Amino acid sequence: MQTDKSKELLAKVVLINNKLNFSGTADSNPPVSIDYTPPLGDNLGYTSLELFLLSLSSCVGSAVLSILRKMKKEIKGFEIESKGIRKQEHPTGLKTVYLNININSSDVKDEDMEKVIQLSESICPVWSMVKGNVEVVNNVNIV
Amino acid sequence: MQTDKSKELLAKVVLINNKLNFSGTADSNPPVSIDYTPPLGDNLGYTSLELFLLSLSSCVGSAVLSILRKMKKEIKGFEIESKGIRKQEHPTGLKTVYLNININSSDVKDEDMEKVIQLSESICPVWSMVKGNVEVVNNVNIV
Repeated sequence: MQTDKSKELLAKVVLINNKLNFSGTADSNPPVSIDYTPPLGDNLGYTSLELFLLSLSSCVGSAVLSILRKMKKEIKGFEIESKGIRKQEHPTGLKTVYLNININSSDVKDEDMEKVIQLSESICPVWSMVKGNVEVVNNVNIV
Repeated sequence: MQTDKSKELLAKVVLINNKLNFSGTADSNPPVSIDYTPPLGDNLGYTSLELFLLSLSSCVGSAVLSILRKMKKEIKGFEIESKGIRKQEHPTGLKTVYLNININSSDVKDEDMEKVIQLSESICPVWSMVKGNVEVVNNVNIV
């Protein structure tokens, strides 16, 4: 199940118990266990919204890193902590996602990052897919 | 890093090489390797858009299953194959996602499924987050 990922992507989820535990796969990657909280599920894996946070934060991270490297900046460490706040009425999607971007670098400056985040917004595929529906708030910490 | 997941969710991605390979985690789940295709990445994990497909398809699947169970339908097997078609201009998000919903059941009827999909759309959080930006096309196969 491999394709040209610049054009199309494939994935599959298979129910593996009698509640909501799925085994998810794409390409030849190790399966990801997906589940929901009790009572509907049993907490046996990532929730769909946690997978969304991984999807969005890795996408933003990849964009930010690619831009910083084009600027010849040194990256000694990089991580993004994400927090998604849900709506309390159906459908209970995320209304706001906070991305805490932690960069370990000797030459990335706070003033670089405003432009880098703007450029990232213009190229990050996952961010573009939630435009108008989910607010994404970025906070950058350079150490 | 545990919260009330009906209110907020947490996740984290940490860069683990000098390209775009992240280790992603949420709660106490085993880490997910995330990467991009060459030359930017090395195909060492799920792409961000594959994680999005897992997020969306598990969300739709959970909604469909919850509704079918309320209808007292028997589910002997359930899986969703997803295919995402990317835009070819930046940002190269998914313009269309095809969900192939395969249900093994002796009492779910094709005529039930139109209403079930409509209801699922009204409660699936991830679907709501891409409304207006991504077309979701469902196809149901009952065996």
